[in-house]
Amino acid sequence: MLQFFTLDLLPAKNGEEPTMQFLLEVVDILTNYVRKTFDRSTKVLDFHHPHQLLEGMEGFNLELSDQPESLEQILVDCRDTLKYGVRTGHPRFFNQLSTGLDIIGLAGEWLTSTANTNMFTYEIAPVFVLMEQLTLKKMREIIGWPDGEGDGIFSPGGAISNMYSVMTARYKFFPEVKTKGMTAAPRLVLFTSEHSHYSIKKASAALGFGTENLILLSTDERTHIHSDGLCLQGCVPMFVNATAGSTVYGAFDPIHEIADICEKYNMWLHVDGAWGGGLLMSRKHRHKLRGVERANSVTWNPHKMMGVPLQCSAILVRERGVLSGCNSMCAGYLFQPDKQYDVSYDTGDKAIQCGRHVDIFKFWLMWKAKGTIGFEHHIDKCLDLSHYLYTKIRDQSSVELLPQHTNVCFWYLPPGIRDMPDGQERRDRLHKVAPKIKALMMESGTTMVGYQPQGDKVNFFRMVISNPAATRSDIDFLTDEIERLGHDL
Amino acid sequence: MLQFFTLDLLPAKNGEEPTMQFLLEVVDILTNYVRKTFDRSTKVLDFHHPHQLLEGMEGFNLELSDQPESLEQILVDCRDTLKYGVRTGHPRFFNQLSTGLDIIGLAGEWLTSTANTNMFTYEIAPVFVLMEQLTLKKMREIIGWPDGEGDGIFSPGGAISNMYSVMTARYKFFPEVKTKGMTAAPRLVLFTSEHSHYSIKKASAALGFGTENLILLSTDERTHIHSDGLCLQGCVPMFVNATAGSTVYGAFDPIHEIADICEKYNMWLHVDGAWGGGLLMSRKHRHKLRGVERANSVTWNPHKMMGVPLQCSAILVRERGVLSGCNSMCAGYLFQPDKQYDVSYDTGDKAIQCGRHVDIFKFWLMWKAKGTIGFEHHIDKCLDLSHYLYTKIRDQSSVELLPQHTNVCFWYLPPGIRDMPDGQERRDRLHKVAPKIKALMMESGTTMVGYQPQGDKVNFFRMVISNPAATRSDIDFLTDEIERLGHDL
Repeated sequence: MLQFFTLDLLPAKNGEEPTMQFLLEVVDILTNYVRKTFDRSTKVLDFHHPHQLLEGMEGFNLELSDQPESLEQILVDCRDTLKYGVRTGHPRFFNQLSTGLDIIGLAGEWLTSTANTNMFTYEIAPVFVLMEQLTLKKMREIIGWPDGEGDGIFSPGGAISNMYSVMTARYKFFPEVKTKGMTAAPRLVLFTSEHSHYSIKKASAALGFGTENLILLSTDERTHIHSDGLCLQGCVPMFVNATAGSTVYGAFDPIHEIADICEKYNMWLHVDGAWGGGLLMSRKHRHKLRGVERANSVTWNPHKMMGVPLQCSAILVRERGVLSGCNSMCAGYLFQPDKQYDVSYDTGDKAIQCGRHVDIFKFWLMWKAKGTIGFEHHIDKCLDLSHYLYTKIRDQSSVELLPQHTNVCFWYLPPGIRDMPDGQERRDRLHKVAPKIKALMMESGTTMVGYQPQGDKVNFFRMVISNPAATRSDIDFLTDEIERLGHDL
Repeated sequence: MLQFFTLDLLPAKNGEEPTMQFLLEVVDILTNYVRKTFDRSTKVLDFHHPHQLLEGMEGFNLELSDQPESLEQILVDCRDTLKYGVRTGHPRFFNQLSTGLDIIGLAGEWLTSTANTNMFTYEIAPVFVLMEQLTLKKMREIIGWPDGEGDGIFSPGGAISNMYSVMTARYKFFPEVKTKGMTAAPRLVLFTSEHSHYSIKKASAALGFGTENLILLSTDERTHIHSDGLCLQGCVPMFVNATAGSTVYGAFDPIHEIADICEKYNMWLHVDGAWGGGLLMSRKHRHKLRGVERANSVTWNPHKMMGVPLQCSAILVRERGVLSGCNSMCAGYLFQPDKQYDVSYDTGDKAIQCGRHVDIFKFWLMWKAKGTIGFEHHIDKCLDLSHYLYTKIRDQSSVELLPQHTNVCFWYLPPGIRDMPDGQERRDRLHKVAPKIKALMMESGTTMVGYQPQGDKVNFFRMVISNPAATRSDIDFLTDEIERLGHDL
């Protein structure tokens, strides 16, 4: 490829051969990366500080210039981009809720990019629009809404899906806000549990409610909502977010209890199942979302627990018509009513976006390839592994566990801290342990796991298992690695 | 692949060989599709009605089932998905603002999917985060902000970028809205020209301003804003959106004029350059955005005029700190302050999203491959072609043109209408011409172009040229095709 430049590629005359050659060389780089991703003898990452990458690494220069680079250099850039990145599909990558590299999903994404189209109309995305419709219906059936009736849309992530739920609820109760603004409504109050995802707070700020009108409900040690906290004084309670799979613990709010209160006070019930929604695929574990069928809306991110590549998040709404009522603006240049096909398939006006990325295909293709039953096995396997880790470290003196949920949260206690009396000094020292281990872990590049403080709890590890490549030996590797790196702290 | 299923692929034991074989077969399907996309002897689409695709086409069944399908069937599904889709990269696809299939951009997307990571932290997207930062700075320099200072983020499309501008403006003038909600502010009014994109209206509804507090400014025949309409009575004017490249006409509002008024009334000036922002890359055409450096924020979608694959949209903000001030919630589980690297590179808290798709890489890679100069050539070529079409049909009796802008908008007049006197009957008949031609065009699958009514104007064609594969002969083909299909109407 040495002699070629982008102008030699299609649509250039005689561009077919160099185009095919170039794409195959790229694929060669990518398949090599895929191979290495699953190879436990490779590192999860090759860590560098920002200033190091910015200064340029052996011919990898991030700066953009006026003149074109050769395709040979472009291939080098591709290789280097992967080299200095993080292998999120590596069996020992446990750092996020989204991990893994599903091969079918990957193929689906490659096809999606090649099709390079937009979800707003049936006109230019006929197949994808129908796939979205069928898949959303299937998800609503699994939630338990009669005949899978209702509405929904795939959105760019769980935060936006949650934002949709708040917007849709507001439109349901106060449709005049759409035209007259928030001043047309009384003071509206939203509720969520204190361990819920911060996107509910972002939505309350963005949509004009104000974060002070979002009331955080206290939770007990098992992170269940104290439902009686929902009762209110002097403003209009409108919306409750129940979390199905909290971000840190993977805990589940008691949906039935909350649904009772929502019915009593005529509030919208949203279930944020961004993380835990996947459990609905498992006959063994779906009971954790008992009552979800009573929700008015549900966020469910197949890109998390179900292992679909990023991004793939759905907002599902029980009542038909509210989502479009809330968002439609009937732009004439896009949604012409006089097309030759049934324009009810032009779904774009439901969205707050105009153009919308095709997030459905990879998910649909994975579903075809795995079957419903394949997702169930995947979920069951992840929760088994999580339970394995929990029981394995439960009795270790080097570990202090938080309550058991989908995620396994724990403090690693280096010998020097183990016998210290509880108190500020111990807390201060313990707070520094996880960041220190994490830094060493990233520098050695062997594995990755997240940590955070939560409420009055100092930094602890959050172990998430959603990676289909992970096995018990990888869990063992992680705990050994924490021990190895943390023992002398 | 006949005998294999998804469970035989990596991470399965001995999964490497079938994985590589499967991915290469997928790539074979995709490269064939790429080849055909640029082949003018292939159709742009093979149109089917929704009910036809839903009933199932020769073994292409969209329904999801409980049991897995073989990889052989998955490959068939991939082939069929492309077969019944629309070739948006075809040289004769003129239907949207986003067209074309850039090979480098495509390779970039394939790599992005393979890396399968998330933009929220440097921790898991070190290279992409830096690329985003450098590219945004470059874009700000091109806008003309001193030293490229300021802030910005890539967002899931122009509508969300525009929404960011309104949110950021509100935070700048009324930061208390973040915590106290819209009732803490006086009645706020937003302005936009009547031909601006409908996302400004969507934002005013979603963010709690209300669409009635968005004032549409009338425009004259050349679609310039009547700037004196901006003066106001009895509420707080806060925000003006100036459009740089309107959706239908591709017209440009006079930014300097509007900036003067914004300064006088202390309003935020946003320039929606989703469509027209690309002209900033061209020394010949950037004068159409004269004054853009006076904007407080700019939307600029490289996935439109610059031919980057979907999605790639940036919101750029002149003042540093407002964007993060507006959106940050400091989620401890994601943005730990005690990491080992400089956490100012963790950009996720600026976003209203939590997880964020990597939209930067394909753009960065295209910039490397084309150079700044390559984008300039592309823009100049598109505008040349647009001018070619305009002058070509200007004197044809079968065509009535709307004023010349970036897009070429026109009515096709079949012989039976040509000599009719102006009046309701002529209007009614003319209104039906474009939809009818478009329907025939889609059924024959030869080319695609958009149409819409606008204000008091009945349906007319909107010809957009952003496809690098299009040549004069394709423009000729389109006009001939319209004549062929419309002559006897």
